[in-house]
Amino acid sequence: MFAQTPKPPYYAVIFTSVREAGDSGYSSMSDEMVDEVKKQSGFLGFESAREELGITVSYWHDLDSIADWRNNRKHSIARSKGKQDWYSAYKVRICKVESDYDWFRSE
Amino acid sequence: MFAQTPKPPYYAVIFTSVREAGDSGYSSMSDEMVDEVKKQSGFLGFESAREELGITVSYWHDLDSIADWRNNRKHSIARSKGKQDWYSAYKVRICKVESDYDWFRSE
Repeated sequence: MFAQTPKPPYYAVIFTSVREAGDSGYSSMSDEMVDEVKKQSGFLGFESAREELGITVSYWHDLDSIADWRNNRKHSIARSKGKQDWYSAYKVRICKVESDYDWFRSE
Repeated sequence: MFAQTPKPPYYAVIFTSVREAGDSGYSSMSDEMVDEVKKQSGFLGFESAREELGITVSYWHDLDSIADWRNNRKHSIARSKGKQDWYSAYKVRICKVESDYDWFRSE
């Protein structure tokens, strides 16, 4: 459900995107990237939803972990494919999570 | 499409939620909250998508603006309704956006 993140501070990368029509290998690469990122040091988890707009938030231990993932070879190939085929546009925001809280219905 | 946010730093509130079944007045209150938040000082914009998980990211000038919105009377009523009827669970993360970049397909 929610990414299981530690007590703040930690980091979040908010990736907002608009897709081009058609799959063009997106779904299989997306699955592959999930497997790959889980092996990445400092990766804490992610949350994702798409309607008109897609929002994927990944959580990270620190900025170095985010930079390492950006330099990951498979991830770089996926990003090139993203610009070539999958996305009309995207925006990336790198954030420090300063505080958080949650609520769960108790029945 | 994407929220038109200024040059960082600015703030983001990542609201991740799971809905209960049924509308129970959620859609009309959601529209009302969008109208209300746009009047709020320091509000910069928002992005939203829902599948199994709902993610709404709102962007703010500073932490004071976020606190003021939390104290907004209509928003407080909506939050009570949220716990009573609309949500099974939610998580809120308050973040400082330290950097951002975007990409748009040029044709």
